[in-house]
Amino acid sequence: MPTITSFQNPKIKQVMNLRTRKGRKDKGRFVVDGLREIKRANDSGLTISEIYTCSAHCSEADTRTLTEIAQKANLPLHPVTQEVYAKISYGDRQSNGIAVVETRYRNLNDFRPEKNCRVGVMERVEKPGNLGAVLRSADATQFSAIFLADPIIDLYNPNVIRSSTGAIFSVPVYLCKAEEAKAWLLREKFDIFAAHLKGAQEYTVPNYSDKTAIVLGNEAAGLTSVWEKEPVHPIRLPMLGTVDSLNVSVTAGVLFYEVLRQQRQNR
Amino acid sequence: MPTITSFQNPKIKQVMNLRTRKGRKDKGRFVVDGLREIKRANDSGLTISEIYTCSAHCSEADTRTLTEIAQKANLPLHPVTQEVYAKISYGDRQSNGIAVVETRYRNLNDFRPEKNCRVGVMERVEKPGNLGAVLRSADATQFSAIFLADPIIDLYNPNVIRSSTGAIFSVPVYLCKAEEAKAWLLREKFDIFAAHLKGAQEYTVPNYSDKTAIVLGNEAAGLTSVWEKEPVHPIRLPMLGTVDSLNVSVTAGVLFYEVLRQQRQNR
Repeated sequence: MPTITSFQNPKIKQVMNLRTRKGRKDKGRFVVDGLREIKRANDSGLTISEIYTCSAHCSEADTRTLTEIAQKANLPLHPVTQEVYAKISYGDRQSNGIAVVETRYRNLNDFRPEKNCRVGVMERVEKPGNLGAVLRSADATQFSAIFLADPIIDLYNPNVIRSSTGAIFSVPVYLCKAEEAKAWLLREKFDIFAAHLKGAQEYTVPNYSDKTAIVLGNEAAGLTSVWEKEPVHPIRLPMLGTVDSLNVSVTAGVLFYEVLRQQRQNR
Repeated sequence: MPTITSFQNPKIKQVMNLRTRKGRKDKGRFVVDGLREIKRANDSGLTISEIYTCSAHCSEADTRTLTEIAQKANLPLHPVTQEVYAKISYGDRQSNGIAVVETRYRNLNDFRPEKNCRVGVMERVEKPGNLGAVLRSADATQFSAIFLADPIIDLYNPNVIRSSTGAIFSVPVYLCKAEEAKAWLLREKFDIFAAHLKGAQEYTVPNYSDKTAIVLGNEAAGLTSVWEKEPVHPIRLPMLGTVDSLNVSVTAGVLFYEVLRQQRQNR
């Protein structure tokens, strides 16, 4: 493939457009930065449509691996100049490889939960870094899925991808409305625990040994009324100081690890 | 006080300078945004040097409270125009009150730990949002202090203040070198637990009922060799998926809550 040298090249313009939420929505594609992430996207069954390399940022071994991925999937690998690479890179950091990948939005109706299935529900999540951190925790504690209920941010925001350190490719994410998520969880006989500041029980009290959903609210506004009544169990983390809430990804982490601790103990 | 209308006013220039790390270092001052945060800074014994208000962003009640704080401490309260307020505000959000406050750096030699004292040590922390989230968790779990060992960021970075939601004013923070922190902890007979990816024990195994220090490493590089050998106990969180680490503020949250859980159970 000839080296792309111009910012005006339509392919380059497309990559830059995919850095915007509107561009991703219009084209159904997003950008993945870095060889490790590209590999993970590929392994997770996502469809890569093209790859960009730059000799200044990709070692020979990197380029070999990217070439293999491209050849196996029969897709174009475009070398670009250092200036063009800087232009299509995310932020100031330049990674070893950039790929354009098709977005995948999973549907709850396709999800078949196993016995002792654990899922996290994030309602109206607003900050990419929080979603990324929750995906890492979900991966580490082997939660089966994260349900993104009425998200304010876009799943494929570059900061979600970066802060998830690849977990966005290992943890299945289902987009849904909050009401839908709740109806699905009840139909599938999950115990639903919603993290409320004034939850009735401390989080260490309930028994999480059956199918368990942990529900987390928006960073500023908390949970909507969808999660207010029975059979949803309101739980709380002790807050013994002066601040009135934790970072939502911290709350998620503490709860996911408590569920894991109990389920492993009971096995 | 007359309303400040010019960006060239030396006081306004000073506030803008304090938004930079160098400015904070040179002047020994930092900026606090929002009435709630200003109150907390004031309650925590920090010295406020001046306050700025803007009728477009501060309600009459807000201005009354700010005036009370200013009068009690005998310090100037400057009304500024909307344009000037936008200029000295942090980011796009405009808060209800801005104060210039003197920095305070605590010295480990002044810290007298109580029985069952819990402290967190963050070594070489790099991201303001992570430090802010850890301070919130430390506040919620009543950790007595956070030791900032060789931090890469500045404690008074505006993103630390914002993401701590006030915990920066409630949790005592001690700046130190890693070696110093370790020597102090050993002298004071703390059990030291360092979160390592390959820690020898899972975090739920040790007994945290005595004086306990939880040590956390840099976001990318982890802990330095200071925390490698006995008597430091390496602990790990189960990582059952594909990613190789958690967000450091999540790790801190899970560990702080486990220490709290054990200490409350034993009481």
